[in-house]
Amino acid sequence: MERGRVSTDKPFTRSACAIANSLDIVGDKWTLLVVRDLFFGKRTYSELANSPEGIPTNILAERLKRLEAAGIVTSAPYQERPTRYSYTLTPKGRALGDVLAAFVRWGKQHIPGTVVMSEVSASGRRPRGRIR
Amino acid sequence: MERGRVSTDKPFTRSACAIANSLDIVGDKWTLLVVRDLFFGKRTYSELANSPEGIPTNILAERLKRLEAAGIVTSAPYQERPTRYSYTLTPKGRALGDVLAAFVRWGKQHIPGTVVMSEVSASGRRPRGRIR
Repeated sequence: MERGRVSTDKPFTRSACAIANSLDIVGDKWTLLVVRDLFFGKRTYSELANSPEGIPTNILAERLKRLEAAGIVTSAPYQERPTRYSYTLTPKGRALGDVLAAFVRWGKQHIPGTVVMSEVSASGRRPRGRIR
Repeated sequence: MERGRVSTDKPFTRSACAIANSLDIVGDKWTLLVVRDLFFGKRTYSELANSPEGIPTNILAERLKRLEAAGIVTSAPYQERPTRYSYTLTPKGRALGDVLAAFVRWGKQHIPGTVVMSEVSASGRRPRGRIR
């Protein structure tokens, strides 16, 4: 190993840039919407599937697996036969609230008519977080 | 038109959510890296094509068109025969610096070994902006 080289499990996919590596995990049209919904208190697969954007269920399932592999989401069974899982953001996942907030500010200011979807939760639960 | 409905040129693609509509423009692995490079002072197509992530040139050309259509980038010819264009962020585009900064903070804190690529500019020009 080169002297001074930071040890990581695998080399960077594209570069050492913090933005590029973040986008390798959440850089697509859907992943941050799943994070948004978890941030506002959704927990089950069906709650996540029922968001207004209409995420295709195969994409939702793949993204949840990817987010869990990246340490952004944890899952735990809440029902057996059939087993169903609830999903929660880890501290690493909750820290993405800062990115969500930046997108909210930019969108509201530069895309006319857009709103904060903090009331997006159809679960009836109180939102767990606030987007500034 | 419904009473109270915000008038826009076209209806929202997925929902009125500010995050979803932002991701419809910049939600992919490459677009925000082009914005990053312009933010730090790159201006020409070849400068943008030479970033360490190795963006495929067909993707770069498509993203520049998309960013210009979205009012994030403006282009102006700087040479004729063959005509070559320089690209600059508009105020709407510069405002994405806030999103870039949020990704930098999250990446540096949660993806070991990642760095701020403010020195990414190969143009020799002084960066035009700073990422906090």
